[in-house]
Amino acid sequence: MKRKYIFLFFTFMGLSISAQKTLQERLGYPKTAKLLIIHADDLGMAHAQNSGSILAMEKGSVNSASLMVPCPWFSEIAAYAKDHPYGDFGIHLTLNSEWKYYKWRPVLGTEDGRTLIDESGFLHENLEIIDRNANAAEVENELRAQIDLALSKGVDVTHLDTHMGALFLNPDLFQVYKRLGKKYKLPVLLSKAALENYGLSPDLLEESDLVLDRVFTAEPKDYQSGLATYYTKVLQKLQPGVHAILLHTAHLTDELESATIEHEDYGAKWRQQDLDFFTSEKCKNLLKENNIQLLTWREIRDKLVR
Amino acid sequence: MKRKYIFLFFTFMGLSISAQKTLQERLGYPKTAKLLIIHADDLGMAHAQNSGSILAMEKGSVNSASLMVPCPWFSEIAAYAKDHPYGDFGIHLTLNSEWKYYKWRPVLGTEDGRTLIDESGFLHENLEIIDRNANAAEVENELRAQIDLALSKGVDVTHLDTHMGALFLNPDLFQVYKRLGKKYKLPVLLSKAALENYGLSPDLLEESDLVLDRVFTAEPKDYQSGLATYYTKVLQKLQPGVHAILLHTAHLTDELESATIEHEDYGAKWRQQDLDFFTSEKCKNLLKENNIQLLTWREIRDKLVR
Repeated sequence: MKRKYIFLFFTFMGLSISAQKTLQERLGYPKTAKLLIIHADDLGMAHAQNSGSILAMEKGSVNSASLMVPCPWFSEIAAYAKDHPYGDFGIHLTLNSEWKYYKWRPVLGTEDGRTLIDESGFLHENLEIIDRNANAAEVENELRAQIDLALSKGVDVTHLDTHMGALFLNPDLFQVYKRLGKKYKLPVLLSKAALENYGLSPDLLEESDLVLDRVFTAEPKDYQSGLATYYTKVLQKLQPGVHAILLHTAHLTDELESATIEHEDYGAKWRQQDLDFFTSEKCKNLLKENNIQLLTWREIRDKLVR
Repeated sequence: MKRKYIFLFFTFMGLSISAQKTLQERLGYPKTAKLLIIHADDLGMAHAQNSGSILAMEKGSVNSASLMVPCPWFSEIAAYAKDHPYGDFGIHLTLNSEWKYYKWRPVLGTEDGRTLIDESGFLHENLEIIDRNANAAEVENELRAQIDLALSKGVDVTHLDTHMGALFLNPDLFQVYKRLGKKYKLPVLLSKAALENYGLSPDLLEESDLVLDRVFTAEPKDYQSGLATYYTKVLQKLQPGVHAILLHTAHLTDELESATIEHEDYGAKWRQQDLDFFTSEKCKNLLKENNIQLLTWREIRDKLVR
């Protein structure tokens, strides 16, 4: 059931095409422009995730990323973000501690988050339990604490997104997600497909919401046939509009293999393949040949939200 | 000031020789026996700490270890301990999150431990702050939660010791340490030198306490002159009695180098040297040549405490 929840999220994120011309035009680009955020998730999760993602941003084509505040290596990437004030760093709002042996606790601890933790005090392992148990007020307190901690560490937070799509699980959590965006004056990652995925009504989207046209994430079947093949197709077939690719650039190390043990999908080898592709000359050439312009959340935030 | 606190602990732990003949005789050994616990600290701290210490126990001469429950990799080593029910695994009672970028939170969270955490919600970085701020009742709650969590994960806990010597900082904390031993019917690591180190009165030791004759830990000056040289001398000069060597066996990986960044002392290279020595044939031969018998905390626990 857990896999279903995870894969559903990634499957449906890529399916629908919205006609949000408004966003593209409001950003000041022509209709024909293909705008793309190449976005690394899960920074702070492990040292190998930080080192791989830094490499992908400095030498590769990744131009945006989000940080998991409750994770053990958050302080390392927060210090990096503070030292790179023009980088594009959002908060990967985290309600899950999903790996088998490598675990983290909520920022707030137990006091304001009893529905958010398992019997060991870790954040819940899977989405089902969150959907069933998590109290929206406790979720909001915890996620505010995550954003506040990043801000207090000097991170110029550019956007919000949701680890494993947990904030699309039900309307209450979705409202928390949107309220956080408003409270902190930050764009939040939204797509119609994500709402469809979890059976949320499209009426939950308001006229003022910034909704991306497409959000691409490789699925297990793409991993089976090779991630480079998948990403190549995404770039070659990209249509005019405002899009994001979500990926997980990391070094394949003993740390990461052990952290992601028994999770072949989205595991260490997968993440090294992401790193290989998004640091390749092939990727750079594909972006150029296909006239793809990179867009940051910072640009969206500063032009349209603040 | 922090270094002073750390080094004082390790310096004084090794200085005094006690005449606790009782312990040796009560364990059923002759007066001439040299009994030694070769003890790896900090298990659970990092994956490289777990993998190195497992190697040192399985192929090397390490015969006892203790687990840091609040740390990110605790679940990995707890599962190993559960699968190795005759291993010698204690709890390395943890009040510090001492590294720069790699951090952990208390088990209890903030509710019952407001004096135990810094402004980011991590356990305090150094001993000074604990000495000054930590409320003994909050310490006791947190440490009970640490022991309880290990027990709930199926670890047959054999003993208690204290990470960085924090429970020797003042009489209140020392009483917590001893109370925990009594409550859980576990031997706790005690030496007269540790009390002297922190200026605790020897009157705090009771007749019934199990006090080791000597506890050896390499200091920075020993690292400068080579850890193998230090350990060789310890083994060659070991006198009859009941002793322990505390060490930190770990693999020198990118994870561990980054975790221990800016801490050359007790850092990644140091820990790999510990691993090298305690998996060497030289170490095994020294133990044999010097008629040193390995002792476990399990034996002490089962013969004298339970």
